[in-house]
Amino acid sequence: MSKYQHIKQSAYEANMQLPKLGLVLFTFGNVSAADRELGVFAIKPSGVPYEDLTPESMVIVDFDGNTVEGDLRPSSDTQTHAVLYKHWPNIGGIVHTHSTYGTAWAQAQRDIPIFGTTHADHLTVDIPCAPPMDDEMIKGDYEYETGFQIMNCFAERGISYEEVEMILVGNHAPFTWGKTPHKAVYNSAVLETVAQMALLTEQINPQAPKLKDALIKKHYERKHGPNSYYGQ
Amino acid sequence: MSKYQHIKQSAYEANMQLPKLGLVLFTFGNVSAADRELGVFAIKPSGVPYEDLTPESMVIVDFDGNTVEGDLRPSSDTQTHAVLYKHWPNIGGIVHTHSTYGTAWAQAQRDIPIFGTTHADHLTVDIPCAPPMDDEMIKGDYEYETGFQIMNCFAERGISYEEVEMILVGNHAPFTWGKTPHKAVYNSAVLETVAQMALLTEQINPQAPKLKDALIKKHYERKHGPNSYYGQ
Amino acid sequence: MSKYQHIKQSAYEANMQLPKLGLVLFTFGNVSAADRELGVFAIKPSGVPYEDLTPESMVIVDFDGNTVEGDLRPSSDTQTHAVLYKHWPNIGGIVHTHSTYGTAWAQAQRDIPIFGTTHADHLTVDIPCAPPMDDEMIKGDYEYETGFQIMNCFAERGISYEEVEMILVGNHAPFTWGKTPHKAVYNSAVLETVAQMALLTEQINPQAPKLKDALIKKHYERKHGPNSYYGQ
Amino acid sequence: MSKYQHIKQSAYEANMQLPKLGLVLFTFGNVSAADRELGVFAIKPSGVPYEDLTPESMVIVDFDGNTVEGDLRPSSDTQTHAVLYKHWPNIGGIVHTHSTYGTAWAQAQRDIPIFGTTHADHLTVDIPCAPPMDDEMIKGDYEYETGFQIMNCFAERGISYEEVEMILVGNHAPFTWGKTPHKAVYNSAVLETVAQMALLTEQINPQAPKLKDALIKKHYERKHGPNSYYGQ
Repeated sequence: MSKYQHIKQSAYEANMQLPKLGLVLFTFGNVSAADRELGVFAIKPSGVPYEDLTPESMVIVDFDGNTVEGDLRPSSDTQTHAVLYKHWPNIGGIVHTHSTYGTAWAQAQRDIPIFGTTHADHLTVDIPCAPPMDDEMIKGDYEYETGFQIMNCFAERGISYEEVEMILVGNHAPFTWGKTPHKAVYNSAVLETVAQMALLTEQINPQAPKLKDALIKKHYERKHGPNSYYGQ
Repeated sequence: MSKYQHIKQSAYEANMQLPKLGLVLFTFGNVSAADRELGVFAIKPSGVPYEDLTPESMVIVDFDGNTVEGDLRPSSDTQTHAVLYKHWPNIGGIVHTHSTYGTAWAQAQRDIPIFGTTHADHLTVDIPCAPPMDDEMIKGDYEYETGFQIMNCFAERGISYEEVEMILVGNHAPFTWGKTPHKAVYNSAVLETVAQMALLTEQINPQAPKLKDALIKKHYERKHGPNSYYGQ
Repeated sequence: MSKYQHIKQSAYEANMQLPKLGLVLFTFGNVSAADRELGVFAIKPSGVPYEDLTPESMVIVDFDGNTVEGDLRPSSDTQTHAVLYKHWPNIGGIVHTHSTYGTAWAQAQRDIPIFGTTHADHLTVDIPCAPPMDDEMIKGDYEYETGFQIMNCFAERGISYEEVEMILVGNHAPFTWGKTPHKAVYNSAVLETVAQMALLTEQINPQAPKLKDALIKKHYERKHGPNSYYGQ
Repeated sequence: MSKYQHIKQSAYEANMQLPKLGLVLFTFGNVSAADRELGVFAIKPSGVPYEDLTPESMVIVDFDGNTVEGDLRPSSDTQTHAVLYKHWPNIGGIVHTHSTYGTAWAQAQRDIPIFGTTHADHLTVDIPCAPPMDDEMIKGDYEYETGFQIMNCFAERGISYEEVEMILVGNHAPFTWGKTPHKAVYNSAVLETVAQMALLTEQINPQAPKLKDALIKKHYERKHGPNSYYGQ
């Protein structure tokens, strides 16, 4: 048995959550699961329909993007995953989808405004939308550069990948991450729901104000602060 | 067997209706079931996925918000439920969700206008949206104050909790209630449908007039009046 | 066995199609099935959830709205059905729903414009929206008057109930009919789809022109004309 | 056994994908599967509900639109399929649906703008919307002319049916095609998703710019170019 069996299994299970949560059409998405000690991650093979996936079909890749184990070609977004794992030491799972509402905000090139507590239960700022890549980066190693596009956006805005576990890549679609692949998938579903609610909010009231600071702080802290009292 | 078994079972069944009706993502909702004679209610434990719920996992809490029985921490919204049960003697069930359209109206900080008979079959006024809480209340016992935020809104507008069994909490999401937990869940689904129809109505006709008084009265009375002839 | 068993069975089956087609929430809809020779129709009992329906629970009512057989109270909309059966001799089934998009157009008090061939495959004019009832009619026998509200709208516009098998009742919701209950249910689903497409069409292009006459004529005739070649 | 069994089976399976993918209501769609050597295609019979379809019920038609084998009347859109097979030698499957968002864009008579990479992964230009047919063509052999309406649109714009495998027919609905019936169905689902995302994008940002050339080129080439690295 592969010594990577545990992350293959974990990546498989997390990938299978995507169609169940309505976040992907056909093969438009992928999840990876990292093992930090072994310095590798398991990721969905490219172009394989979800109904044909098995734990064994997951591909093992190192943090420089080299395939370590597996018969199939890894997801075309593999280099983006590798870059993020390499530079952000505290994440254990990454998800990329083209979920409908999240992708629409990415195509509109707008941050998703923080309008309510559903959003504030998960992050205290607008969901950032990274600007489209410049032409030189696109011509280069595109998926590799996408990783830097994401990291640069966080650096420029001074936000932490441990506090904000999601981003929209302008003109493209969402990426999310977390301590585990399961948490990263959870974040993808949260992003999609918050994206839909934000669009509807603006349709109901084009002058809808953002959530005020006191509420942002309260909701985030009850779930994430030192005195959190949400969950078990 | 617990002497609270009947409300645990009732709260469990009502909670399980929420995902079935499409009103919750993950754990974003909770239902409670009260026993007025025993002076307690059963409520969903905090952060537990619906697929893992059992009647036994429900937590028993008194109307001052103290846990009476149960191994798990009760829903983080428990104090809101307690306040409402304490002050509104004729309700037997309460529901809180972040359902998509109801939450969007709450984020937009607008009452849901009464545009048609689907709405009037259930209440004769706009669905009220309570204003966001002031900063002092937020810093205090937040969920406890949410209960007063709801009651104050009804008091200021002079509407009765027995005639209007639903509210939007501004920037947050809907709460509904009823004589039974089942009726409270029913009201949550009605609110979500009415919220979606009202948004679509304004999109189709931004000048759509509200329902006229004669129709409001007629539809409400055929379902709720002394000569009601709706249902068995 | 009841001599009305065949229409009870037919009404039961047609009613059960409504939740399957996503046209009703809870009990917000009803279907009836007429037997012209016996001068009666079978209709859903009032307020009974679809999952509890049986063929036996259907109520038999004559064309003056009197209950002929059945232990339960018939749908609160029964008088509307009776009026339409009495005055429109060539219909065998009637459906009333509060389907989301159809109801939104009714609340917006607008006809649904004929924008495309999906619409023209079924009728050659805008789907009419009857104006809200005047206050005197509302105070009277409301559901009975709803039948006349529908018929008056058709008379004033000079359209035939045999060519146009659907209407929106302003501020209320859709009614549809047909030679059979099955056809009436089919029409309810068509109305809902056409209603959604028309709203989306105006959102994509607020100046979208209506379908031109040559296309209206062609599509309708290929399905309904003397040389129709649609279907078997 | 029919010598056309293989395309009957293929057409049957592809047709059954349409309701599963949410692309059709009732019988509002059809798929055909061609055998280029035999010079025929198998197509859905007209007006038969999907749940009643069998491989045996598929109708065999030649590229001039003559029925070669089958007891049922072929889809009313058969002549359109025949024209496209006759003039476009490298397609093996065609799909027609009235899917909700695609049809709304067709009714709005607008091309679907290329706003993001979901679109660019499949084609490098806006999804074309052919103008409504002129009245003379409508009065003639309508479905036959629809084939020319499609081909004329591609000829006038100088785009290739091998690179762009989808079109909207103005006031009507989408057609898609591909090397296989399976690929044509895949394209119908892609069109519907891209159509929904494009509408949402314009709602979120009415000034949303189109995808820039460098990204269009990159995404298309990674899937379709000589050095493609998407899929297995």
